[in-house]
Amino acid sequence: MFAPAYLDHNASTPLDARVREAMLPWLGGGRWGNASSRHEYGRQARAAIDQARQQVAAAVNAHPTEVIFTSGGSESNNLFIKGAAANLPVGRIAIGATEHPCVREPARQLQRAGWRLDELPLSAEGALDTQAALDQVLRDKPALVSVMLANNETGVLNDLVTLAKTQRAQGGYIHCDAVQALGKIPLDFRALGVHGLTLSSHKVYGPLGAGALVLDKRVELEALIGGGGQERGLRSGTENVAAIVGFGLACELQQDDLPQRVQHMQTLRDCLEIGLQKMQACLFGVQAARLPNTSFFAFEGVDGETLVGKLDRAGFAMASGAACSSANPEPSRTLLAMGVAPELARGAVRVSVGQGTQMSEIESFLLALRQTLNELKNLTALAV
Amino acid sequence: MFAPAYLDHNASTPLDARVREAMLPWLGGGRWGNASSRHEYGRQARAAIDQARQQVAAAVNAHPTEVIFTSGGSESNNLFIKGAAANLPVGRIAIGATEHPCVREPARQLQRAGWRLDELPLSAEGALDTQAALDQVLRDKPALVSVMLANNETGVLNDLVTLAKTQRAQGGYIHCDAVQALGKIPLDFRALGVHGLTLSSHKVYGPLGAGALVLDKRVELEALIGGGGQERGLRSGTENVAAIVGFGLACELQQDDLPQRVQHMQTLRDCLEIGLQKMQACLFGVQAARLPNTSFFAFEGVDGETLVGKLDRAGFAMASGAACSSANPEPSRTLLAMGVAPELARGAVRVSVGQGTQMSEIESFLLALRQTLNELKNLTALAV
Repeated sequence: MFAPAYLDHNASTPLDARVREAMLPWLGGGRWGNASSRHEYGRQARAAIDQARQQVAAAVNAHPTEVIFTSGGSESNNLFIKGAAANLPVGRIAIGATEHPCVREPARQLQRAGWRLDELPLSAEGALDTQAALDQVLRDKPALVSVMLANNETGVLNDLVTLAKTQRAQGGYIHCDAVQALGKIPLDFRALGVHGLTLSSHKVYGPLGAGALVLDKRVELEALIGGGGQERGLRSGTENVAAIVGFGLACELQQDDLPQRVQHMQTLRDCLEIGLQKMQACLFGVQAARLPNTSFFAFEGVDGETLVGKLDRAGFAMASGAACSSANPEPSRTLLAMGVAPELARGAVRVSVGQGTQMSEIESFLLALRQTLNELKNLTALAV
Repeated sequence: MFAPAYLDHNASTPLDARVREAMLPWLGGGRWGNASSRHEYGRQARAAIDQARQQVAAAVNAHPTEVIFTSGGSESNNLFIKGAAANLPVGRIAIGATEHPCVREPARQLQRAGWRLDELPLSAEGALDTQAALDQVLRDKPALVSVMLANNETGVLNDLVTLAKTQRAQGGYIHCDAVQALGKIPLDFRALGVHGLTLSSHKVYGPLGAGALVLDKRVELEALIGGGGQERGLRSGTENVAAIVGFGLACELQQDDLPQRVQHMQTLRDCLEIGLQKMQACLFGVQAARLPNTSFFAFEGVDGETLVGKLDRAGFAMASGAACSSANPEPSRTLLAMGVAPELARGAVRVSVGQGTQMSEIESFLLALRQTLNELKNLTALAV
């Protein structure tokens, strides 16, 4: 038997013990109340939210008043795309070719409402083809652009600074889904120059149920959830104080020791990939700048689902394609967009290490993987 | 000094200790994972959500597959109203005259998109005027109707069964915001006959950040939050497992001992109102069928904000108007719609007791209230 390991941090992370401690007072620990209430309970809740807003803002070099708390990344992406479009005439929207479904789907809703939806071109390594994207945006002048900062499957990073500057200069909006980037690379809302930046708590050892849209106030958004007028009228609904408090602290903790954590994850990832290469894995996106924690790979002739299932039974949690769309048996859209053959793409599996991952877990995983591949090879030999 | 008391349960409730225990494993207690992940962590999360879905469904006599988890009541209301409208031609929507802002605001968004928005008539006691509403719905044939079951301020109950039957018979949709009703009166999705029923966790001693839309599957909704396709494609985003688990258990607990809890709250409420009447309070909605826990009242010549502020400093948490719109200094819309004079409406305060409220707290509150009123009277006398 191998020591089990959780190697799916891009899908979700365990809650940091310090974050848990900060949340507990708000979860039956004597503090509760509606943050809109004008009594001591309400004021305490409001103060806790205000502090979290400062923590989130500080983590991405934004002003606290630019932070809109939501229930998570999917809501933030929908809020920007549909909320901005609602105040614009029907026009064009351009998104990256490998966007997460929670960007693709609202963009498709706009398409059904008459918008023209274009994809921005990709390089063979899975990054945005910056020059081609610039040319396209200059030519088409889309009212809305949305491009992720780091791909959830490959971990490949996109360079958005010039694109954002260009899109701004021609009067359009640009949004960035930075859910996978937060806590793994330095993140600077000002330097990126985008109008909206999506963050998620549960990808950075914070709780599920919290996220943010960091928003340039010059963007006029229609609320996705209208009502009591919370979050400057852009996101109504009683604030989830415990989750927001946890998200705030998680952001602060991520910033505190980012270089050390990046180094830790990268060491593990590099060790993992040396092992994978010894087993003749095909590694995707490795020539591009990418996140320090993510490996996306396949073995020729080995089905990804099968591999993930066998390793799961051995105690190793990893992903075949993105968790968010794992109900979908199609091969990874990202890989197909990168020009990977469908047969190979069907074999793709993702390992994403985290701040708590140990080298012994990587070693144990490599041993289990080798044994599993041998078993599968023997099965195939028997079948032939 | 008086023993302090939390008397604002309609704004938010403290977390039940049993609910907290059920949530803790999912909050840094060794369980985490994305419920869409195809490994053991993901499957455990999925199983926990499935169980919660059954608990919520059982609490309102619905089928588990009819339960769509959301981040809360505001999202559920927006999802039904805007989600249904997105698949209908521009038409008419009719809502109750005292709906919560998170029903009024999406209805207004439809109005701005060309829909005709009508209000359904109210009786003097603050309930829906059922016959007049029926006549209006039969005459106008609105595509959408949304009426709350219990008013958050007065606690007054609406009779929706005939209205729902009529609206269904003529091919329209009817939705009900039952956020304030859950856990205070028996709730039956089937018997009500509505197409959509909104529930919220933090009003029933569950955590913030969870709610549900119970939905008749014949309604075609467009997702408010599109993406990974969670919740049958109607609500994307990684599920907030801890909050959903807590919400499920909270629903179960509420149903377990509903008659006893209702009796407990009603005894307290009645005792409170006897005391209020002795102080010449004007009580709103008391002739109507209403929730067992809510008193909405005013004293002539006494400003509600001032009273709430003074009692807050003495340790008593109550509301002046609804918490959700307490940033708004306008007198209660509900009272104005009931024909209460604006001067008196400005004095309105709400006490809402809960399952944990003690008789000693009510007695303490009444003493503090009497003393505060005397102080205010003396101040007024001095000022004259």
